[in-house]
Amino acid sequence: MNTQGIVSKGDFLKNWQGHRTLTRRTIEKFPEQDLFNFSIGGMRPFSDMVKEILSIAVPGLESIVTNVIEKYNHDLPLATKAELLERWDADTVKINELFEQISIDRFQENFKIFGEYEFPIVENIQYFIDNEVHHRAQGYVYLRALGIEPPFFWERY
Amino acid sequence: MNTQGIVSKGDFLKNWQGHRTLTRRTIEKFPEQDLFNFSIGGMRPFSDMVKEILSIAVPGLESIVTNVIEKYNHDLPLATKAELLERWDADTVKINELFEQISIDRFQENFKIFGEYEFPIVENIQYFIDNEVHHRAQGYVYLRALGIEPPFFWERY
Repeated sequence: MNTQGIVSKGDFLKNWQGHRTLTRRTIEKFPEQDLFNFSIGGMRPFSDMVKEILSIAVPGLESIVTNVIEKYNHDLPLATKAELLERWDADTVKINELFEQISIDRFQENFKIFGEYEFPIVENIQYFIDNEVHHRAQGYVYLRALGIEPPFFWERY
Repeated sequence: MNTQGIVSKGDFLKNWQGHRTLTRRTIEKFPEQDLFNFSIGGMRPFSDMVKEILSIAVPGLESIVTNVIEKYNHDLPLATKAELLERWDADTVKINELFEQISIDRFQENFKIFGEYEFPIVENIQYFIDNEVHHRAQGYVYLRALGIEPPFFWERY
């Protein structure tokens, strides 16, 4: 694996943090009320999707780094846009620190993340990223339905 | 790079094709009329997003493999769900064949995809995948708004 990889550890993290920057911009675009209340087709408001993303990233990495499997809890006590963004920024730093602690050799190791899904660690973390891209895109539709232009998809810096 | 990679060429392709399987399931869930006409907030119908995805994947890989830069054309002559799915399946095979032809060493090579975005080839292709996840998720919101349950996010097989 290590001799055939096409994505380095640093580039993998850079891609994730780039997506997180874009998700942060998406949160910022929401009016406070709509962030917590607007929804389409019985789906969750975007704030709940953001809480899901937050409850996966750092807790998931902590679990991997410490090798202790824990259930996730999506019900975070974050009740305002400012609180969501504050946690977002605190987690940006934690993600860098935790990710750094995963040795190259561990990424292919199977890990039963949150006690539910047993896959190689790199696939678990890719799933975190894909899940974030997925829910952020749903936030884009909410913004469009609210008449608000979402950020450009390439604004990852 | 090759000595530090955490994602192999084979796993990178497997992740992409897994996402493509899920996108195919998402297309299948749409009633024919809604696939081509339903939209929210002035966005495109899901069929147009699918055409965008199709017009990026194989043409992008062909461009990389042949080293000839071409503009993309999203306006594909696909007017029914059956035609979209037929092209989807044909492209599944082509993607495997074309991806295989990109040597490990080329993934870090800069390439100005579609004459617009100059990035390492692996980042170009990751962008194709992320763009697909993004638009598919918008299709999920359309389905929910139509009262249709989307496929499970982990149905990638």
